[in-house]
Amino acid sequence: MNDYAPTPEDKFSFGLWTVGWQGVDVFGPASRPLLDPVEATYRLAELGAAAVTFHDDDLVPDDTAREETLDRFGKALADTGLAVEMVTTNLFSHPVFKEGAFTANDRRVRRHAVAKTLRNIDLAASLGAETFVLWGGREGAEHGAGKNVRAALDRYAESLNLLCAYVKEQGYSMRFALEPKPNEPRGDILLPTLGHALALIAELDDPAMVGLNPEVGHEEMAGLNFAQGIAQALWHGKLFHVDLNGQHGPRFDQDLRFGAGNLRGAFWTVDALEGSGTDNRYDGYLHFDFKPPRAEAEDGVWESARACMRNYLVLRAKVRAFRADPEVAAAMDAAGVGELGEPTLGDRETLADLRQEAHDIEALGRRSVAMEALDQLALEHLLGVR
Amino acid sequence: MNDYAPTPEDKFSFGLWTVGWQGVDVFGPASRPLLDPVEATYRLAELGAAAVTFHDDDLVPDDTAREETLDRFGKALADTGLAVEMVTTNLFSHPVFKEGAFTANDRRVRRHAVAKTLRNIDLAASLGAETFVLWGGREGAEHGAGKNVRAALDRYAESLNLLCAYVKEQGYSMRFALEPKPNEPRGDILLPTLGHALALIAELDDPAMVGLNPEVGHEEMAGLNFAQGIAQALWHGKLFHVDLNGQHGPRFDQDLRFGAGNLRGAFWTVDALEGSGTDNRYDGYLHFDFKPPRAEAEDGVWESARACMRNYLVLRAKVRAFRADPEVAAAMDAAGVGELGEPTLGDRETLADLRQEAHDIEALGRRSVAMEALDQLALEHLLGVR
Amino acid sequence: MNDYAPTPEDKFSFGLWTVGWQGVDVFGPASRPLLDPVEATYRLAELGAAAVTFHDDDLVPDDTAREETLDRFGKALADTGLAVEMVTTNLFSHPVFKEGAFTANDRRVRRHAVAKTLRNIDLAASLGAETFVLWGGREGAEHGAGKNVRAALDRYAESLNLLCAYVKEQGYSMRFALEPKPNEPRGDILLPTLGHALALIAELDDPAMVGLNPEVGHEEMAGLNFAQGIAQALWHGKLFHVDLNGQHGPRFDQDLRFGAGNLRGAFWTVDALEGSGTDNRYDGYLHFDFKPPRAEAEDGVWESARACMRNYLVLRAKVRAFRADPEVAAAMDAAGVGELGEPTLGDRETLADLRQEAHDIEALGRRSVAMEALDQLALEHLLGVR
Amino acid sequence: MNDYAPTPEDKFSFGLWTVGWQGVDVFGPASRPLLDPVEATYRLAELGAAAVTFHDDDLVPDDTAREETLDRFGKALADTGLAVEMVTTNLFSHPVFKEGAFTANDRRVRRHAVAKTLRNIDLAASLGAETFVLWGGREGAEHGAGKNVRAALDRYAESLNLLCAYVKEQGYSMRFALEPKPNEPRGDILLPTLGHALALIAELDDPAMVGLNPEVGHEEMAGLNFAQGIAQALWHGKLFHVDLNGQHGPRFDQDLRFGAGNLRGAFWTVDALEGSGTDNRYDGYLHFDFKPPRAEAEDGVWESARACMRNYLVLRAKVRAFRADPEVAAAMDAAGVGELGEPTLGDRETLADLRQEAHDIEALGRRSVAMEALDQLALEHLLGVR
Repeated sequence: MNDYAPTPEDKFSFGLWTVGWQGVDVFGPASRPLLDPVEATYRLAELGAAAVTFHDDDLVPDDTAREETLDRFGKALADTGLAVEMVTTNLFSHPVFKEGAFTANDRRVRRHAVAKTLRNIDLAASLGAETFVLWGGREGAEHGAGKNVRAALDRYAESLNLLCAYVKEQGYSMRFALEPKPNEPRGDILLPTLGHALALIAELDDPAMVGLNPEVGHEEMAGLNFAQGIAQALWHGKLFHVDLNGQHGPRFDQDLRFGAGNLRGAFWTVDALEGSGTDNRYDGYLHFDFKPPRAEAEDGVWESARACMRNYLVLRAKVRAFRADPEVAAAMDAAGVGELGEPTLGDRETLADLRQEAHDIEALGRRSVAMEALDQLALEHLLGVR
Repeated sequence: MNDYAPTPEDKFSFGLWTVGWQGVDVFGPASRPLLDPVEATYRLAELGAAAVTFHDDDLVPDDTAREETLDRFGKALADTGLAVEMVTTNLFSHPVFKEGAFTANDRRVRRHAVAKTLRNIDLAASLGAETFVLWGGREGAEHGAGKNVRAALDRYAESLNLLCAYVKEQGYSMRFALEPKPNEPRGDILLPTLGHALALIAELDDPAMVGLNPEVGHEEMAGLNFAQGIAQALWHGKLFHVDLNGQHGPRFDQDLRFGAGNLRGAFWTVDALEGSGTDNRYDGYLHFDFKPPRAEAEDGVWESARACMRNYLVLRAKVRAFRADPEVAAAMDAAGVGELGEPTLGDRETLADLRQEAHDIEALGRRSVAMEALDQLALEHLLGVR
Repeated sequence: MNDYAPTPEDKFSFGLWTVGWQGVDVFGPASRPLLDPVEATYRLAELGAAAVTFHDDDLVPDDTAREETLDRFGKALADTGLAVEMVTTNLFSHPVFKEGAFTANDRRVRRHAVAKTLRNIDLAASLGAETFVLWGGREGAEHGAGKNVRAALDRYAESLNLLCAYVKEQGYSMRFALEPKPNEPRGDILLPTLGHALALIAELDDPAMVGLNPEVGHEEMAGLNFAQGIAQALWHGKLFHVDLNGQHGPRFDQDLRFGAGNLRGAFWTVDALEGSGTDNRYDGYLHFDFKPPRAEAEDGVWESARACMRNYLVLRAKVRAFRADPEVAAAMDAAGVGELGEPTLGDRETLADLRQEAHDIEALGRRSVAMEALDQLALEHLLGVR
Repeated sequence: MNDYAPTPEDKFSFGLWTVGWQGVDVFGPASRPLLDPVEATYRLAELGAAAVTFHDDDLVPDDTAREETLDRFGKALADTGLAVEMVTTNLFSHPVFKEGAFTANDRRVRRHAVAKTLRNIDLAASLGAETFVLWGGREGAEHGAGKNVRAALDRYAESLNLLCAYVKEQGYSMRFALEPKPNEPRGDILLPTLGHALALIAELDDPAMVGLNPEVGHEEMAGLNFAQGIAQALWHGKLFHVDLNGQHGPRFDQDLRFGAGNLRGAFWTVDALEGSGTDNRYDGYLHFDFKPPRAEAEDGVWESARACMRNYLVLRAKVRAFRADPEVAAAMDAAGVGELGEPTLGDRETLADLRQEAHDIEALGRRSVAMEALDQLALEHLLGVR
């Protein structure tokens, strides 16, 4: 019997800010009391997580009690065996970043943003984090004139180059992962999709040090197919980290627990992370970046967290069964899925060979593609009726 | 007096398929008679266009009368002085491409797609076209299993590499421009935004030969800011061509005339094309890819075409007046727009310098950014009340 | 063992235009041959459908062979036992309706639309159809000035009043069902959501004769929750018919098979149709209005049709198991779901009683709502892991 | 010369919470200091507003200093001549309302919500407010099971009936206006569009007492055409109030200043409010419900507020010029706009007359509708180039 209980081998990870979200939104104040991040760490370990992550401000919002908090946190890590796999810097909450951090028009703000990040990189390194995520939630604009986009991209790249140089200089074993988002809280955010971020990365001084941390809901807010997106990220070798949650298409950022929202999308997301039937799979941490709904009390917070992992494990089992099903294999053949792996032009062929070939395009136009049948098999695995 | 009459120097260009669209949609057949593409060429010249573009199928749908049509078309070009600045291949209408062209699972289809494109590249070269656009409207999927995305990207890249090699081998003076689109007619299209396409290009054998042909409506269907998108494309040096039209956000592909749809977006689009106040401007053709609404008869077709150009010229005059307005310059200063051009780290500075700097972040958090005032000035230029 | 095989008691119904869609879209012509509607009727019966529906143009596009077709169709109905449960008139394909039918500016077009509908009502009555659906796909506008919306609503109401009067005069046992849609093929369609249509109905001469035929995808194109929408329609007593299919949020009208698209939405849709745990359930036909993807050949057409019914039956079984699960009942109690059935003001209470009551709103603000736990139970029923 | 300076005759009104928004959002705390609502009242009067509105919590968040605040506010009203034209109750901020107010599962919460509203109705009446707005921002759900939608509609209607009865009993001269919204902060909000709200109103005990307060951004978040929506509201006689602001389609609730966002939509919105060329115009207050962007300091707050009014006046002047332009009148004739006012069936005609009429539908299918030309005229008025 499969009880879908998470183990550290599953590499589940949680942002401390997720279970720690108190429910403040544009329309109302906190609905839940402050959660001690160290207590949250113990609790997540009990639930089966393998790691935690945090923004500097989640754990050590200011210098008061910084050392004491880090000591208590260090003890919790030691007690539970949890890793700090990723750290990120909050460059969006404080009003100083209200019109940007690395791309603020005000140069002092940019310098403060870089300094804050450097300090936190040191902390991250001291805790053994191998991934440093950067979400530029305030890097953007509501208007067309106040932000020179090309200058902003210059500054974005400059900041990333500075951070990479610092990490190399310090000898830290750490890579950066950019987290794209199309909008909210800014009207339009720079690097709105994973594609835009990939494009920027290719222009950096050391592209190998920077990859992506795509988030399910962020891509779906632009109506994009997340599984296709991370497949492209894997194709580029750039899926350094991932943020799992749920969303209902273009609307506000819902940050639902994983599995809620677009369920079929979640199935294909897990399939893509598992390699889509190949050995080229994502082997990093499975990081949940969700918000327990504001309506929930503490019981709902932990139920949400538990369910994120459980839903992943359920979907993983289904994805594996799907890929192992002989009838699926036959349906894949019927749909010609494997044939796409074959180069269009043969090894010893020339374009002239290809051009002189005659095809009966009317007949080809009538051919069966049999993709509905294949998709229905997938759906039946998802529904558990096979 | 400004009469906003287009001249060839404005470099306006039209797809023959735009004024030639007969109004066939999912819910009904043609509402307008077939328009002879050669006649359309004369008419567009009269209206002030500088160039025309076409898919192979628009002009020479099959081999019958191919030579005769090309002769008549060549005469029209000579008579009118119109250029063929861009050509593109239809890889989406014929059912043979129903599940993809360069990324069809069926290898024969892929080979046919490449061969069809090569033939059309020869035609394009013979007509002097310097840009060859590729829109992969059927490259995609409705389902998660039928299309192996990573294999599809391999094939996409392979095809582009083959085409680039051919063009170089032939010595044609031609560059390729990819046109992204998030969905429709496929459920999810590969390379859904200009960011995703930029990322792919960076992986090609000869990235310099391939750039973008972004379309206003396609990016706006994903809720993205088009002006920001083309600013990023310019930043990468990849804005090879542009498709101008109108759209009302995430919904079906409306292909409204330029100016209809998101008008403030159109203002900033023109501003971005004009260089956003810098000398780094787009200097290619301004290509309209719109559909006169199916409800219109022929009079509406030509009114739409006329208005595309007129609206561009009106907006260009407004953008230039905005950029030249001293009050705008003062507002830009107040918003610190120019300061973003200054590097975050000075020439002789080190990160250590930056880190030891103290900022009064509370005071910085309260600073005026004055972007509403600047945006209101832009709006008033747009409205013609300044 | 549950094999989810449909029977006539399940009351599944198909539009002849669904399996008959040849794949014409804005970007390409037919990919499949014409399907004889009479043949389709036999085939749908074999698959387990209980009824078919059609637009006049699907079955009898013109007067040629009208009688012969109707004879053959009548024989098919007799042979198979299939009912014609609903009929609808095509008021959107012919260019005469290009800017509206009942709300065309041109009065002759409106008169033609009414006459065409009356003729088809006679045919519907002769075939025993009890529901007559009206989808006003071309009733709308791309622009703000060309259509006087209030005059259009006058004409919409006028036409409906005329049709109702006719049906009563003829003594037909038939009700009308309006099908809302936000856009496509028009830029903005009148009565864009089921709410707008309900509002109009309340203003008609005989509101009891007119209800709704909501379609999953149409509401989801506006980002609306379909299950909530049909619950409101049931609350008004206006769910006369339903169109089931699949969609991925705001984008073009996908018309996916039922179960594809928003799967969790489909679960709650079936739950709402089944009465959401009450006896107040929808008891009409379950009508599929989908389009087999253009990429599919005939095999895919029938696989899609089969899967629509199968998915409904699978989801129905899951919904019933969910509602019968004692743990779910306990979770519903914990979430206070039943308490909402209790009036806010008691029978013998006055507002003064209510106003003098003291509540500890801080404590109430901290109360558990336990909805995540309940939703997770629903998700696990859907996934088949309970 | 037109300086577009607002006067009280323009009936501009502002929520105190608009200029008072401190910039708290999901991703960060306040960026601006608390603004004294009484001070805001003086300032809005200086800018040219005619009235202010508030939630109980904006002005008198608790009982401390309630009387003193009301005295100061009363003096401000007297000093400035500003009216309190509308009042509304905050039923969404306090955690007690976290899963609903009138439709909370917990009956005590519902009773508290009604009592809070009654108390505020008394206050509203004492200040002479004639409109009482109800926005049910927390009435909704993230899940399908936790909220019984039909029971919720029962409770919604019950609450409205109780409030209406109270107002009549007290002899207050006050009407209610419902404000629909599709989502945010809840996953799906009940009465998601103005259509859904109109439908509910028709079921109330005294429908005449309840109308709508539609908000530009809320309808546009569902991709709906706001001008068409308020035209339908006017058609039903239900446009009791209006919330003007700006939005960029389906995404988070942006609450931009009026004129920002969808500018062409704003033009048609003003046209619809002005009666779309008829005498049947909206004559209530023009209420701005916007949020100055969080990035702005106090200067930006007042610039935004000023620009809301100015943009309305600019657009009103343009709309009037458009409607008065003889060339527009001719284009309206060409498009047959007026013909839609003519009933489809003549006074003495029967359906039989209509049915025996023959139309050349092929010719009608080819007719000119000339709507592009008309729309281009409107655009040119908007751009100020006519």
